[in-house]
Amino acid sequence: MSAKGSQPDGAERRLQDLGIQLPAPPTPLGTYVEAVQTGNLLFLSGTLPLVEGKPKYIGRVGKEFDTEAGREAAYTTALNALAIAKEHLGSLDRITRVVRIAVFIATSGDSFNLPKVADGVSDLLRDLFGKEKLPVRVVIGVASLPVGVPVELDITFEVA
Amino acid sequence: MSAKGSQPDGAERRLQDLGIQLPAPPTPLGTYVEAVQTGNLLFLSGTLPLVEGKPKYIGRVGKEFDTEAGREAAYTTALNALAIAKEHLGSLDRITRVVRIAVFIATSGDSFNLPKVADGVSDLLRDLFGKEKLPVRVVIGVASLPVGVPVELDITFEVA
Amino acid sequence: MSAKGSQPDGAERRLQDLGIQLPAPPTPLGTYVEAVQTGNLLFLSGTLPLVEGKPKYIGRVGKEFDTEAGREAAYTTALNALAIAKEHLGSLDRITRVVRIAVFIATSGDSFNLPKVADGVSDLLRDLFGKEKLPVRVVIGVASLPVGVPVELDITFEVA
Repeated sequence: MSAKGSQPDGAERRLQDLGIQLPAPPTPLGTYVEAVQTGNLLFLSGTLPLVEGKPKYIGRVGKEFDTEAGREAAYTTALNALAIAKEHLGSLDRITRVVRIAVFIATSGDSFNLPKVADGVSDLLRDLFGKEKLPVRVVIGVASLPVGVPVELDITFEVA
Repeated sequence: MSAKGSQPDGAERRLQDLGIQLPAPPTPLGTYVEAVQTGNLLFLSGTLPLVEGKPKYIGRVGKEFDTEAGREAAYTTALNALAIAKEHLGSLDRITRVVRIAVFIATSGDSFNLPKVADGVSDLLRDLFGKEKLPVRVVIGVASLPVGVPVELDITFEVA
Repeated sequence: MSAKGSQPDGAERRLQDLGIQLPAPPTPLGTYVEAVQTGNLLFLSGTLPLVEGKPKYIGRVGKEFDTEAGREAAYTTALNALAIAKEHLGSLDRITRVVRIAVFIATSGDSFNLPKVADGVSDLLRDLFGKEKLPVRVVIGVASLPVGVPVELDITFEVA
């Protein structure tokens, strides 16, 4: 057990080792909640690349943003999702598996390098939870996203 | 127990109190079914703003429709979804939680006020099931939807 | 029991009867896995119309492809999904229900005949699993998909 009670190889410990500080969890933009658990499944609302409640990125991949910027926006959505999960669960170490992610990317319609953008989420999940807990993934290029952001993350966890 | 056997504060009773009459449930537009239950989860097919089998709205939010019209279309998809759930379950009072909604909105690509459109679904769910059963929500602006409608609702329930 | 150990009316037997040979399952295009099982639910990554790892179709429905070609692309995504499920489960006969499919179709934005395209998936599922195991379905027209393909399939199974 570490000083903070997280498992030596758990996601909480890896967060610390990587020097990643989770943001305050986002608050809903409408009539919904950020997390719902049913049985062992934890569903989250679509998370956006918001920082302190404001969009850090506005625009589309292939237009205002290149693949690398899209990747960074995707990474930011993942941090927000983890912040929600931690608030709901108390600790990320209660996550036994990342089941599924769907990454929606606002594109100009002729941007096809979407998997690289989505890796901004997936690479972080691999670093925190390990390869053996990697999720399935659905990647979709769309017309527009709430408040004009380039990426939205839809994530489902299995929890103990 | 009310005269109709619904719980005093249940969704069936609230439907009555609000004077909302559910439509006949829509029938599939292809090779699929409208509802599948697995364990305690009830998945529904994407519901459209159809009235008596025909699209009540055709167009996109930000082009043919403004946010308010999109919201009304969203409300209509929710009525259809509830009609399917009721047909499958017998009573909406068997729903223990609305787990998740995904609201897909056909947009011209530069419409970002999507959460307001999606509230056309969420506000109705809150009124019927109460704040404590609100779902997580994913909102996406897309290029086009079946038969040209502006909104499609993907909803998952937890049932007793 | 048939010579190969599949149930007489099971999906494996029907595959044989229809002379359908499943392809080698696709390999991930990024940091994710192709299948995750949690409880009785088997989630798959979004499958594309790839043949031997390369896109068989590149373009959009309503632009480079008509509805019929979109339908063929959809059929190809389904074969890939079944190949993944079989690799994970050992046999398709372990599938007790196809729970849900979401079919994402890259369109020029004014193509609304999307249900016909999606039937390229659903008709095959009906032929293999029977009408009583048909899934719910969500059909969405989108701006772009990974590597430029016209269809992506998101499928969830219930397994024994």
